Amino acid sequence: MKKNMVIAQSGGPSAVINASLAGAVKRALESDEIGEIYGSLYGLEGILKSETVNLRDEFRDPSDIEKLRNTPAMALGSCRYKLDMENEDETEKILAWVKDNNIGYFFYIGGNDSMDTVHKLSDYFALKLPGVKVIGIPKTIDNDLMNTDHTPGFSSAARYIATSVKEIYTDTLSYDKPTVTFVEIMGRNAGWLAASSVMARGEDCSAPHLVYLPEVPFDEDEFRQELKEMVDREKITVVAVSEGLRNREGKYVSSSESQSHDKFGHAMLKGAGTYLEEIAKDMGYKTRTVELSLLQRSAGHCVSQTDREEAFICGEKAVEAALNGETGVMIAMERIPGDEYRIEYKSEIISGISNREKMIPEEWIEGRNVTSQFTDYMKPLIGEEPLPYHYRISGKMKR
Amino acid sequence: MKKNMVIAQSGGPSAVINASLAGAVKRALESDEIGEIYGSLYGLEGILKSETVNLRDEFRDPSDIEKLRNTPAMALGSCRYKLDMENEDETEKILAWVKDNNIGYFFYIGGNDSMDTVHKLSDYFALKLPGVKVIGIPKTIDNDLMNTDHTPGFSSAARYIATSVKEIYTDTLSYDKPTVTFVEIMGRNAGWLAASSVMARGEDCSAPHLVYLPEVPFDEDEFRQELKEMVDREKITVVAVSEGLRNREGKYVSSSESQSHDKFGHAMLKGAGTYLEEIAKDMGYKTRTVELSLLQRSAGHCVSQTDREEAFICGEKAVEAALNGETGVMIAMERIPGDEYRIEYKSEIISGISNREKMIPEEWIEGRNVTSQFTDYMKPLIGEEPLPYHYRISGKMKR
Repeated sequence: MKKNMVIAQSGGPSAVINASLAGAVKRALESDEIGEIYGSLYGLEGILKSETVNLRDEFRDPSDIEKLRNTPAMALGSCRYKLDMENEDETEKILAWVKDNNIGYFFYIGGNDSMDTVHKLSDYFALKLPGVKVIGIPKTIDNDLMNTDHTPGFSSAARYIATSVKEIYTDTLSYDKPTVTFVEIMGRNAGWLAASSVMARGEDCSAPHLVYLPEVPFDEDEFRQELKEMVDREKITVVAVSEGLRNREGKYVSSSESQSHDKFGHAMLKGAGTYLEEIAKDMGYKTRTVELSLLQRSAGHCVSQTDREEAFICGEKAVEAALNGETGVMIAMERIPGDEYRIEYKSEIISGISNREKMIPEEWIEGRNVTSQFTDYMKPLIGEEPLPYHYRISGKMKR
Repeated sequence: MKKNMVIAQSGGPSAVINASLAGAVKRALESDEIGEIYGSLYGLEGILKSETVNLRDEFRDPSDIEKLRNTPAMALGSCRYKLDMENEDETEKILAWVKDNNIGYFFYIGGNDSMDTVHKLSDYFALKLPGVKVIGIPKTIDNDLMNTDHTPGFSSAARYIATSVKEIYTDTLSYDKPTVTFVEIMGRNAGWLAASSVMARGEDCSAPHLVYLPEVPFDEDEFRQELKEMVDREKITVVAVSEGLRNREGKYVSSSESQSHDKFGHAMLKGAGTYLEEIAKDMGYKTRTVELSLLQRSAGHCVSQTDREEAFICGEKAVEAALNGETGVMIAMERIPGDEYRIEYKSEIISGISNREKMIPEEWIEGRNVTSQFTDYMKPLIGEEPLPYHYRISGKMKR
């Protein structure tokens, strides 16, 4: 007997989360065991409010799957919803909706919080409605999910960040004056994204010259010394800063000390980049801060093709896992050792993933830089197409 | 008798100014009448300090011309140098360098200020050293040079801006909450760049919903009303703001009223986007500001191919004009009327260009929006390749 499926997206947008949705829908459309394919609007909220769309109707034209695959951010919409299993009103609403709609397959695409939801729901259904398969599909630009080599969304954000840092550096080289440019990069706890800026480096680019990660406590005196040494050496300096940079007490530097107020008296939160910029300005440098902001997570025009392909396959594999009877798992990627980059897709038990965070390994960090272990890890993720080569006039460089 | 040439870059970087340099060097290498090809480092300063590079040596390998053509920002370096003809010390230094190096051809790539330099130098040499040909090659992302349909650099910046605005809007659609996102765009006097954000619009994108240009005075009460109406209608709203937005008194809104101070007591300049954001926050909206910052002028990964090609040709045409004996002119582009986009390159007398600025024609602006005359003008400039189609779940849109 055919069962229906439901799929939802949750957490922050990425450039390829729709590719995972597209992969899952495509695979579901190929299956004889799946009846209706529901999309829940705005994460779990769609189920709680009975606001779903019929994706079988939506994707009558297969070329639309391809369009969806290439669209950044979240076509179904997202929520920042923390499922509370103690709230019986809510859990019963979900249970009732799943029963009423004859759901046999439940897919949730997201990051850490979303995998917590997958964990809770798979336990809950195992008890209340055995037979409902609940599968997590990984998605986070932060790359902080356990038990997977990396997460879909990360590589595209990294590609955008590296490309932008290289272009920012190339821009600042236009002038013959010492300048310090701070690039503020997403990542509240793990520094994967800020670190990925080093992929800008090459024969044609020495930036970023310093990298400030949440994994390494920030100290103002140290920073002043590190920056002075670097500007003395490089003159034109680019500093990558994670928004999650913290001091030795574990407090975000961006939240500490005096905050400014706007003309209406509202506190104006400043970012970690601006915080460091103020110190550099106090040291007498000409400074600027560039926040990569929303663009780093939704830059569909600059995705890693590898990332998009992997996100799509994760969606397909999730449907296959559910059809094989699995539940309470997340689709994960394992990198096969060897010279050639190859990924094996597998299912990982959700309890080993939810509520944990993967940081950059300590041995991959060296002072305010990362090691070649990090760059070796990143290289195939950024994508085959190299960042365009930026020509430098050799006569100018010799000067 | 062979004469040598010198070429320099000046003003702000763009994604295609090196394409103009590449075009000029390529054409010069093909000529039998040109001896050495000097590049002046950091604009005119290179000549004043005798810091030049030999571009004939530099480009022994023709594939390097192609690399230079694809590199954003300024390979020779730039200056913000205002030539003062009253300063005889300087003018004589330039004259001496030009004589000593047997220069017959002098090329300056830049915007308004640079064309002022071309104007002054061509008059000066006509008097002091007749026979030296001085030619301007247009470059400015601001698109504010007179007597040319548009300027190399503008179309690529416009393409990046439109792409980014579309991706920002797609990102903000992920959540089911009213939000106002301000995108601050370059342009101190003319609103061409901020207006170009409308090229984001299409079947798949309604943003930007409001466009604030320097050409239309800003009034806070009007803004509050315009914004309220728009958020009531759109819910998720994106506002494009020119950094050069001014009030009725002609003052930049970003410079007016209270400025914040950092923890060291330095004034923190806020941008026009942040200024409008503060008002929107005061109205109770959830807000964010994204500054496109340096990236909009140096995003080599997102250029308009049309722009790059035109910039290259402008470089070639400048050398041809000089070889034909012209001086005191800038290479300009004229759009040939007709359905197909075609450009005719011509020389325009520099006195009609320097120290003037081209604004968006009044009749192309309508309230906080631009007319179809503007979008018709922009369409071929952005490039043939369309912005990728962003898929919208129709069931979600109907909700």
